[in-house]
Amino acid sequence: MSFTAVDHGMMARALQLAERGLWTTSPNPRVGCVLVRDGEIVGEGWHEKAGEPHAEVHALRAAGDKAKGTTAYVTLEPCSHYGRTPPCAEALIAAGVSRVVAAMTDPNPLVAGKGLALLQAVGIATASGLLENEARELNIGFVSRMTRGRPWLRVKAAASLDGKTALNNGISQWITGPEARRDGHAWRARACAILTGIGTVRDDDPQLNVRDVETTRQPLRVVVDSKLETPLAARILQGGPTLIAGAVDDARKIEQLRAAGAEVLILPNPSGKVDLAALLAALAERGINEVHAEAGFKLNGSLLREGLVDELLLYLAPCLIGHEASGLFNLPELATLDGKRRLQIRDLRQIGADIRVIARPQ
Amino acid sequence: MSFTAVDHGMMARALQLAERGLWTTSPNPRVGCVLVRDGEIVGEGWHEKAGEPHAEVHALRAAGDKAKGTTAYVTLEPCSHYGRTPPCAEALIAAGVSRVVAAMTDPNPLVAGKGLALLQAVGIATASGLLENEARELNIGFVSRMTRGRPWLRVKAAASLDGKTALNNGISQWITGPEARRDGHAWRARACAILTGIGTVRDDDPQLNVRDVETTRQPLRVVVDSKLETPLAARILQGGPTLIAGAVDDARKIEQLRAAGAEVLILPNPSGKVDLAALLAALAERGINEVHAEAGFKLNGSLLREGLVDELLLYLAPCLIGHEASGLFNLPELATLDGKRRLQIRDLRQIGADIRVIARPQ
Repeated sequence: MSFTAVDHGMMARALQLAERGLWTTSPNPRVGCVLVRDGEIVGEGWHEKAGEPHAEVHALRAAGDKAKGTTAYVTLEPCSHYGRTPPCAEALIAAGVSRVVAAMTDPNPLVAGKGLALLQAVGIATASGLLENEARELNIGFVSRMTRGRPWLRVKAAASLDGKTALNNGISQWITGPEARRDGHAWRARACAILTGIGTVRDDDPQLNVRDVETTRQPLRVVVDSKLETPLAARILQGGPTLIAGAVDDARKIEQLRAAGAEVLILPNPSGKVDLAALLAALAERGINEVHAEAGFKLNGSLLREGLVDELLLYLAPCLIGHEASGLFNLPELATLDGKRRLQIRDLRQIGADIRVIARPQ
Repeated sequence: MSFTAVDHGMMARALQLAERGLWTTSPNPRVGCVLVRDGEIVGEGWHEKAGEPHAEVHALRAAGDKAKGTTAYVTLEPCSHYGRTPPCAEALIAAGVSRVVAAMTDPNPLVAGKGLALLQAVGIATASGLLENEARELNIGFVSRMTRGRPWLRVKAAASLDGKTALNNGISQWITGPEARRDGHAWRARACAILTGIGTVRDDDPQLNVRDVETTRQPLRVVVDSKLETPLAARILQGGPTLIAGAVDDARKIEQLRAAGAEVLILPNPSGKVDLAALLAALAERGINEVHAEAGFKLNGSLLREGLVDELLLYLAPCLIGHEASGLFNLPELATLDGKRRLQIRDLRQIGADIRVIARPQ
């Protein structure tokens, strides 16, 4: 499949539009659409919010009569099923679009290819795979949920250059500067859920909501709290949905937490701790695409040991704290360096005075 | 003082030439010189090696008769004293140069300004301070020795992203990749001395010489070894000058180490350890400009605690090792984060698969 320079440019524009939905579309994917005739854009749109029109519908409305004979560039294969809105493939057919280029097919294996097939069946030329990596990255959580039945788990951590996150007395605020904290809030904003552990709740009493950037929705807050010890006055129980994942079926504590406004889910593993994989599966079931973890040494280590970490968002502050302080990950001691957990660096930059590293386990 | 675009361009060229001496000029500074008439370079030169001609002399020789009436751009104020070579200020006067622009004056407070004064006295226009920061950075060790009586101390360390340098069983080779190691050797090559501790000698038995890049000289190797425990078969005692800094006046051990080819210096502090500040002063006395430390947790921590570290050259490998492993710096436990040691990041980049951070204590 070969694409022209115009094809590339138009798909890049569609991706740019799709990105506008970064903080709002979930559980739906972020999608953009551009309608082009003779090298000119006659309509464009992006999906803003679940329940509202898809990107293609916005673009068709913008184009009006000019939609006929256009090429539609969409960052995701047009849907073929009746959901909360009618199928976009049908809308494109009805508008007389003559070619449809998708960045990627639908990641849901049950419907992948069906939208394009519907278009082909009525003689519309179709192609897919243009800027596919970019499209996949944009919806990495949606893709993860559809293909693996679990959300994309991004672990955010802030440490000194010598890898320390907190003092032994629990003090950790603030190691990094205001620019890094704001950047961290932007990453929180794009997640559907923010995950933490009871240790962080006890030590820092964090709100774990989005504050430093504007957003129209707050992610679900999830606390891994095996023994249901979240203090009823904890700030995380205030102002917004919170899910407590526990491992003990203690009716009284469950009732108290529910009375305090939390949802409680009991998911024990054989060692009497929260079954983290089951928790992620449960989050996927309720449409959670991206999970943003901000936890401590213990939960970070558990997530990593169980192979559940997809991405590390690490802020390194330009300071040294010393070996006595707490580290980033609770991991078993290694006998040889072959056992080190290898990562691949995806992005490296300075954010204010701090360093930001985005890396993924290899 | 205002400089033209031509002035800037020519001084940049002179700095470029000076940099060619990065690995060879010590104990002298790295210096470049460009002679310019009517916007054209008529001669250029750089100082290569102590005892050989200075940059100005090379440039004057290259220009020959064309030197008359030129502007000389030099990265360091021309010398005014008879050392191993005659004073460059006199050579510039003799050649009929009409203007001299220096990036910086001589950092030695005893001679600063004397070279320019000599030129002014015979009516030559002089200016200084053009690209001064760049010139200062290029000779940061020489400047340090002249102004503080101690070398510039750069501490190189390699760690995982979670700040671990070695396993508890001492295994540390290799955390970083070949590109980072080669880069590390280039930094070794520009130093006059490589400093390490007895712990590293025992654990790794390193050669601590320059291997991965070409060089015409090997830095002096210095081992901080309070009790004179360097094994006589240690690789660091082979093939090149090595200085053992001890704190115990043990005649037998000193004799053995000397017989093995090492120089031994006994510099005890009141706690019976090597007096690190005194060691650095002793190194400065023998013309050491830049010291490159590659040590472990303990010596790194001591250097930092004593305020002797000028720069941190930190390679972070894209992997996680876990909290049980050894950290970067042995530092006292902090009660509050106000006690963290603040650094300023000077450079951040990827070297192969690793991250390199250059930072300086604030």
